[in-house]
Amino acid sequence: MAGALLHINGTKPSLLTLSRSKPHRPLFSYKPMRVSMSHNSSYWATIDSDIEAHLKQAIPVRPPLVVFEPMHHLTFAAPKNTAPALCIATCELVGGHRDQAIAAASALHLIHAAAFTHEHLPLTDRPTPISSRPGLIHHAFNPNIELLTGDGIHPFGYELLARSDDPSGDNSDRVLRVIIEITRATGSQGYIDGQYRETLGDVAVNVCEKKEGSLYGCAAACGAILGGGSEEEIEKLRKYGFYVGMIQGMLYGVGRNTKGSMDVVIGLRDLALKELKYFDQAKVEKISGLVEANLTYA
Amino acid sequence: MAGALLHINGTKPSLLTLSRSKPHRPLFSYKPMRVSMSHNSSYWATIDSDIEAHLKQAIPVRPPLVVFEPMHHLTFAAPKNTAPALCIATCELVGGHRDQAIAAASALHLIHAAAFTHEHLPLTDRPTPISSRPGLIHHAFNPNIELLTGDGIHPFGYELLARSDDPSGDNSDRVLRVIIEITRATGSQGYIDGQYRETLGDVAVNVCEKKEGSLYGCAAACGAILGGGSEEEIEKLRKYGFYVGMIQGMLYGVGRNTKGSMDVVIGLRDLALKELKYFDQAKVEKISGLVEANLTYA
Repeated sequence: MAGALLHINGTKPSLLTLSRSKPHRPLFSYKPMRVSMSHNSSYWATIDSDIEAHLKQAIPVRPPLVVFEPMHHLTFAAPKNTAPALCIATCELVGGHRDQAIAAASALHLIHAAAFTHEHLPLTDRPTPISSRPGLIHHAFNPNIELLTGDGIHPFGYELLARSDDPSGDNSDRVLRVIIEITRATGSQGYIDGQYRETLGDVAVNVCEKKEGSLYGCAAACGAILGGGSEEEIEKLRKYGFYVGMIQGMLYGVGRNTKGSMDVVIGLRDLALKELKYFDQAKVEKISGLVEANLTYA
Repeated sequence: MAGALLHINGTKPSLLTLSRSKPHRPLFSYKPMRVSMSHNSSYWATIDSDIEAHLKQAIPVRPPLVVFEPMHHLTFAAPKNTAPALCIATCELVGGHRDQAIAAASALHLIHAAAFTHEHLPLTDRPTPISSRPGLIHHAFNPNIELLTGDGIHPFGYELLARSDDPSGDNSDRVLRVIIEITRATGSQGYIDGQYRETLGDVAVNVCEKKEGSLYGCAAACGAILGGGSEEEIEKLRKYGFYVGMIQGMLYGVGRNTKGSMDVVIGLRDLALKELKYFDQAKVEKISGLVEANLTYA
């Protein structure tokens, strides 16, 4: 794990050292800290609302109801994560317009919703889902329909994205690049690899790196690509997104019950903010709110 | 069903009339007819071998083995269908080169392999898969791994395709169009809709129309798009592919035990061949072999 983190960071964040050090603060239990985004919550709220509006327009409940009702339900039943909104925020940070990233952001939510649905599917060898989060899972449909629906939501994400190519076709290379980014981050080299690791009981940091780390890193990079960012901006924002994702995974994902996760999170926050130093600080304030949270122990 | 067929065909093929007519030949049982491609089997064999080589190069067995071993296994364990080969054949028919369609053909196989894997996944409400074909299904991995692997193979299909954009980028609009074609044909409006219909016990022709019909129609259209075919060529070949797929579904898919399916198949064959009349007859011979089969009753 450390190797991959070091590779992405290019420095020696010594997260593992931190996480292995003797905790000098109370141990993480169920809710280790209260996180609030102190700034710009209205900024993130407008993004969320725009993504939701885009998705509602893209997936109306229409005939055949047997197909579109579960598709609509499972798309909006999946708990939101911040990756789609981050995609739009990085697009705007590099000077792009929200419209340029709205399809990619929606695709990221769809692919997350498909993964979430399958992650909670009762299988004969897994009657209890791998990431059972109490209170979150309500199976409105039987497993077979949920399997099929996940399989249907997934390609629809790519359809939305491929259709977002503008009529003049001059962003088609960017759209294709983003498709490759998303397939890699959500496929066997990324999110799916994280799910394998989770199934096999790998340590939390490794799982979060592949799951939330890949997903958020990809989301941030895709926004920057679509907004016309430079290669340097794209890579800085990819790293920022990766750390944001790691924090999410350590706080709310598989890392949530891990001893020493608080120290890891604080280390990740510092690494994330470092990546943003490259950008215009006036513009960066909106996006830095994601990690400049009030971290207080419960 | 009739409506949709008529819509696609634009004429009145009266397939339903045929299938409802009193059979004047022996009824279809398990193996209703022997089908052999009398011509050009070497042509199809070279295509199959090129697709397989492309896939083997794209999915080596490499670390992490826990991810790539099942991915490799399930990609090649899924029974081949003719849709990927048809994609290459239509590309060549309209004057394109095999290389232009090899990624799309490989993606079509990958998406079929992912669907096949999920179709045979034991779920708590479906311990016996929906399309259990005796002798075909050997579960080399546990259901959880097969679920994840299907979810990983699927986006890899789109990755292969998106990466096939040539360096000059002048085919990126075609690649994006093909991605949209494939997401639609294999998603909730196509193959997945067919799987829902199969689950709900809809009649065979409706299921085959959405499953094999969509898939083969899309494959044929994609080959023509990538090979630079005209819109008229693309649509003629889409219809040809649709009928080829319907024949496959009625012979080997859910239609295989359907009363009167032989008459439907003969009707479909005639409709398919009609679409090919538009093309240079010397070139068409290779592709028409798919339906100009020796249909003999068992």
